[in-house]
Amino acid sequence: MQNRKPWGWGVVGGGLGDAAHANLTELAAGLLGVGPTSPIESPIPDARALPKGRLSPADIPGCPSSSEPLDRARHTYGQALRDVVRALEGDFEPAPDLIAHPRSEAEVEAVLETCDRRGFAAIPFGGGTSVVGGIEGRGLRGAFPGVVSVDLTGLDRVLELDPTSQLARIQAGSLGPVLEDQLRAQGFTLRFFPQSFEFSTLGGWIATRAGGHFATRWTHIDDLTSAVRLLTPRGWLETPVLPASGAGPDPNAMVLGSEGAFGVITEATVRVRRRPRRRASVGVRFDDFFAGARAVRGLVQSGLAPAQCRLLDPTEAMLNGADFTGRSVLVLGFESADLDPAPDLSRALELVRDHGGVGDAPRISGNSGPEGPEAQNGSGHDPDAELSQWRRMFLSGPYLRDHMVRCGLIAETFETACPWRTFEGLVEEMRDEVGRIAGEVCGTALVTCRLTHLYPDGPAPYFTVIAPGGGHGARVGQWDAIKAGAMEVLARCGGTITHHHAVGRDHLPGYERERPHLHAEVLAATKRTLDPRGILNPGVLGI
Amino acid sequence: MQNRKPWGWGVVGGGLGDAAHANLTELAAGLLGVGPTSPIESPIPDARALPKGRLSPADIPGCPSSSEPLDRARHTYGQALRDVVRALEGDFEPAPDLIAHPRSEAEVEAVLETCDRRGFAAIPFGGGTSVVGGIEGRGLRGAFPGVVSVDLTGLDRVLELDPTSQLARIQAGSLGPVLEDQLRAQGFTLRFFPQSFEFSTLGGWIATRAGGHFATRWTHIDDLTSAVRLLTPRGWLETPVLPASGAGPDPNAMVLGSEGAFGVITEATVRVRRRPRRRASVGVRFDDFFAGARAVRGLVQSGLAPAQCRLLDPTEAMLNGADFTGRSVLVLGFESADLDPAPDLSRALELVRDHGGVGDAPRISGNSGPEGPEAQNGSGHDPDAELSQWRRMFLSGPYLRDHMVRCGLIAETFETACPWRTFEGLVEEMRDEVGRIAGEVCGTALVTCRLTHLYPDGPAPYFTVIAPGGGHGARVGQWDAIKAGAMEVLARCGGTITHHHAVGRDHLPGYERERPHLHAEVLAATKRTLDPRGILNPGVLGI
Repeated sequence: MQNRKPWGWGVVGGGLGDAAHANLTELAAGLLGVGPTSPIESPIPDARALPKGRLSPADIPGCPSSSEPLDRARHTYGQALRDVVRALEGDFEPAPDLIAHPRSEAEVEAVLETCDRRGFAAIPFGGGTSVVGGIEGRGLRGAFPGVVSVDLTGLDRVLELDPTSQLARIQAGSLGPVLEDQLRAQGFTLRFFPQSFEFSTLGGWIATRAGGHFATRWTHIDDLTSAVRLLTPRGWLETPVLPASGAGPDPNAMVLGSEGAFGVITEATVRVRRRPRRRASVGVRFDDFFAGARAVRGLVQSGLAPAQCRLLDPTEAMLNGADFTGRSVLVLGFESADLDPAPDLSRALELVRDHGGVGDAPRISGNSGPEGPEAQNGSGHDPDAELSQWRRMFLSGPYLRDHMVRCGLIAETFETACPWRTFEGLVEEMRDEVGRIAGEVCGTALVTCRLTHLYPDGPAPYFTVIAPGGGHGARVGQWDAIKAGAMEVLARCGGTITHHHAVGRDHLPGYERERPHLHAEVLAATKRTLDPRGILNPGVLGI
Repeated sequence: MQNRKPWGWGVVGGGLGDAAHANLTELAAGLLGVGPTSPIESPIPDARALPKGRLSPADIPGCPSSSEPLDRARHTYGQALRDVVRALEGDFEPAPDLIAHPRSEAEVEAVLETCDRRGFAAIPFGGGTSVVGGIEGRGLRGAFPGVVSVDLTGLDRVLELDPTSQLARIQAGSLGPVLEDQLRAQGFTLRFFPQSFEFSTLGGWIATRAGGHFATRWTHIDDLTSAVRLLTPRGWLETPVLPASGAGPDPNAMVLGSEGAFGVITEATVRVRRRPRRRASVGVRFDDFFAGARAVRGLVQSGLAPAQCRLLDPTEAMLNGADFTGRSVLVLGFESADLDPAPDLSRALELVRDHGGVGDAPRISGNSGPEGPEAQNGSGHDPDAELSQWRRMFLSGPYLRDHMVRCGLIAETFETACPWRTFEGLVEEMRDEVGRIAGEVCGTALVTCRLTHLYPDGPAPYFTVIAPGGGHGARVGQWDAIKAGAMEVLARCGGTITHHHAVGRDHLPGYERERPHLHAEVLAATKRTLDPRGILNPGVLGI
């Protein structure tokens, strides 16, 4: 965490660079019709900005911990707009009292034992990139005599690699680049690249059912998870390492998406693969976004499983530098360690042409160049220029968002998944309703849509909202109004409250409508069984 | 159920026919070195064979029900060897008191309301094809004042088909051919063909996490299930119809594999697909079974996803009529509604040749001929002769097993899944240990192995044991000794107790070792939440 910014995304000086962030912010401001903007400075939080800490390192024997103001500030929020705005504006009210920094399972045991015994709330913390209030001790200060953030990034090793079964046992606090570096040394990759890749952890991905690199087939970390080790206040829960089983309800399924409410994930055995060496990609343009959507529907329903298959609407395409002619752009790519991906790309191009898609010249590469976002830090050039551009924009998105926020804008995203039958209506209603509410509370707004993940039975639409924000303290309320309207549309149109951003605290109202009433009772019974004193991340999942 | 046999598999006169069953039984007996056998007759059970029924239809108001001896006999057992032997030998001790035959959700509600109020055990019954004691009221007679088998085959309609999202809402009591007939009329198929296809139901598949047609990718019914409706004693639990979601632990996962312990599944929304019209298949022979296994490992790890990819060891190949030269046979096939499957087959053949596989001439077909086991009842010819032969043998297996049992043999199967790293040792140890125990208790045995489903991280090996049985009453104990030894090997070698046969009552000892201790507590808490009086299928899953 040493070089992490005390508020907002990533490291100081990261992303595309200040000039590019400023240009894109001006582009968005221009589209919104608001004047030129200049970024405010971000304060460095000190003890005066934080509520008084009630614990000291001596309170957690057996594990290193810290009550330094900067450490507490860095563990106060996730990375949602409402988090970034509050931190930027100097509000660190939900700060934890203490940050535990375990470096071993024994030290995690020490932390949990103390928290359980003394009734401290314990919030498992991976990379801190929740965008749903998942790691924020909101409202806990009054209810618990201490709030401890358990930072797991000290557990960051690949413990074992089985090349025959293509399985790796990895500690849960490993950040994306940290685990990929270790796997790369042995010729393997997990190939899980959420937008938060550089600052999120394996355990966080599992706890939140994160969505990754693959647009199809292995979309969620669920698909790559063979087994987990979870430390609960009642002891260890370790699931067996199996490729599949029909023995009762899947024990992994109660850990995937548990958001720290049942225990601390300390390691997982995950399905890795040999690094892809062959790649075939193409950009396809559509005059109509929904025609593009019908094309990708045909594609996934045919059985093709592209690694990349992201459909951007015209404004998304422009903000991502992929098209400035008002067309929708499909970024389509196949990859393989062994097989020639070109035939699949040809078949996909035939299908998308039936829906009016116009492809650029396909790019076929078979060398050992880098791939995936981690390649940014690697050597060599990426032969797929357009994909590379897309990746750079993709990983820089949060930096750009921070710049926009410093310039007084609202810039935030949310996502869903729904059946194909209701998809077009959902997108239209979302654009109308979010546009209408944002118009009311902000004057105007850009509402863009892209499809990030695709299934034979439906897509995962991802929305970005950019709008002029009000003055100090206003933007959280403005965004909450917009988001509440979006949640209403999702409930009406049959979309899930989240495809891969989890529930946390921000999505609770929608989640409580979406999940079956008796399922909520089962989750509560599970919580009572594994965490009888209710100390683990209290409030997430509404249990 | 009208034409179902009162014991054993299927309908009177079904399967390959008596002559073929006799020939194959003689072949197996010859391999075992035991003399010619002749089948005993199966009795028609009557009231004298059954324990006194304690309930009458008047006890379950609001739902048709029956206490007829033949109906009770048909609902006493599943289809495991130990079930068939006991029924054949006239032992119907665990017979339920009453069979409820609901034809609507309202009638299911009536049954469950009465059972919950009066404390009757209620055993959800689909097609009755459990091979793990999953629907048997073993030991319940003493503990409950009544035992009711709830036969769901009256709920057998496809309620809704959404061709855009390729989703079908189907009542859970639909038998395989019944739901495929309805889907076929609209050009779709669920394409889920377990060996029990003709006599098992959608709800049963979901309750037991059944394994189906596809050797890769969509192996379990889990992968095809979008949403379920479950009636619990506490009311309805209906999960949302979504292609994917990251909102908390997956609510479907507590229903998949619940084995009737949490509620009665009344309908599900499942992922269907357009009927395949294009097919490419081939038989590949290997001198060595493990070389064949390495070939299919390379194949699935490359990213290819064949629909058929079953590897038979030499004895399996012989008993299935696929090879009589002592070689292992891989039955490999790709299929698609749209795409040409020939390129995938070519790539697969290249890969398997690297491991010494010798392919027959590939068969490519692109017409509208029948496919899948249901085609047996359809019109037209199947262009894939070898696949067709395989399917006929596959679906006739249980009939042949019954014939062998009538001839005094033991004939039974079990299956597992394990990582590739431990697979060869597991198979060798299983052959040795099962062969050793069977030698002790039966004198001799055939132990064969095939791979039915494949994953990048491991295969699902499926074992068949054929041995000479003892006299009346001896075979259950003989088999239990063999199976206990097999469970020990699985525990030692890291195999799951079951890949797709569920837990039921027969697998409890192994399951209690396999599942994490705290997961068992969570299942028990779930049971208490949804079924507080513990009336639903008491004893399965050990809760």
